[in-house]
Amino acid sequence: MDLAELTPELLPYLGQAAYAQLAVFETLSRAVSLAPTAASKEAISRVAALSLARHHGLAAEIRRKGQEPGAVMAPFASTIDDYARDTLGADWYETLVTCYVTSGLLNDFQRQLAAGLAGDVSTRVTQLLSGDDGHGFIVSELRAAIDANPRLASRLAMWGRRLVGDTLLIARSSLKNATRQNDERLEPVFTELIAAHTRRMDVLGLTA
Amino acid sequence: MDLAELTPELLPYLGQAAYAQLAVFETLSRAVSLAPTAASKEAISRVAALSLARHHGLAAEIRRKGQEPGAVMAPFASTIDDYARDTLGADWYETLVTCYVTSGLLNDFQRQLAAGLAGDVSTRVTQLLSGDDGHGFIVSELRAAIDANPRLASRLAMWGRRLVGDTLLIARSSLKNATRQNDERLEPVFTELIAAHTRRMDVLGLTA
Repeated sequence: MDLAELTPELLPYLGQAAYAQLAVFETLSRAVSLAPTAASKEAISRVAALSLARHHGLAAEIRRKGQEPGAVMAPFASTIDDYARDTLGADWYETLVTCYVTSGLLNDFQRQLAAGLAGDVSTRVTQLLSGDDGHGFIVSELRAAIDANPRLASRLAMWGRRLVGDTLLIARSSLKNATRQNDERLEPVFTELIAAHTRRMDVLGLTA
Repeated sequence: MDLAELTPELLPYLGQAAYAQLAVFETLSRAVSLAPTAASKEAISRVAALSLARHHGLAAEIRRKGQEPGAVMAPFASTIDDYARDTLGADWYETLVTCYVTSGLLNDFQRQLAAGLAGDVSTRVTQLLSGDDGHGFIVSELRAAIDANPRLASRLAMWGRRLVGDTLLIARSSLKNATRQNDERLEPVFTELIAAHTRRMDVLGLTA
């Protein structure tokens, strides 16, 4: 099975996805504040704008169903807030890895799940989540730093492993909320998410 | 005299304005993180997106002149970073007042100064800075809190006075950099900025 065969309930899917994209935005805006130069601040602010646009697109879908985004997102707030706090990172580099790893995993996951939504919303959300993720800047910034400093590479590889664990927990809880499937049926979904994550870490020259 | 009679030098004007808008965005993104509910988080994130779009519009004007925004903004970074840190606010309400007061003053100031720029850029930047500032949400959130709590009113009024002082210092230094005018000739400009600020505080029911 894959995620497209599931039919998630629309409002829980949108509420959780919208709030998670807002959390990714908050981490990116922290990266804007931590950025070491005006040039890197400007570059990462573009990635933040892309992530915020995804949040606003998902919030617009909630409004199309006649609901308020705040109310639909609220049940997921405390779990995702805890996750965001735990994955904030201790410095500019860790926070950049967080932005890259968590938004990569969440975008893949939410996009696959969107394929199973009923109606036009499936196409619109898939398109919304398929746009530029702005990762090009993050990759070039991290690769340059990692090439220059092997100790940074091992610290960031460890941080990546922590992030993938925490993010898959969020994805798993999201999937159970949205689809009411049991864990065994969902396992293959996670295998594919981890494979894509491993390829993203390879791009940085880090072992997943 | 008014600001439109000055002819600011284009690149210093754009560099300082773009970096100041980025600082306003950073304060707004802190407000997103501090917001007490998912609904207020979503609402303030829209204000943050508007502010980020102003920054990106100014950065695009720098690129039109064949320059990199990072390099053009860099000379202004440390002064504005200090200002942003000093005006961050201690809680959700103070941070909202900061977003309202500082973006109000900076938008007014930058828009007036844009009128004196030479060429088409004057029209484009004026239009960019005349769009929706998203203040409607901030005003309704603050008015409700102030109506319910007179002690909050006096604390926020004091905070507003601190902010206007700090923000006018930034504006003054910006004007001297961009126009090489002396202080006496610039005084009437500040009188009008303060009058607009006073009207904004009135809207909140606070004394400027």
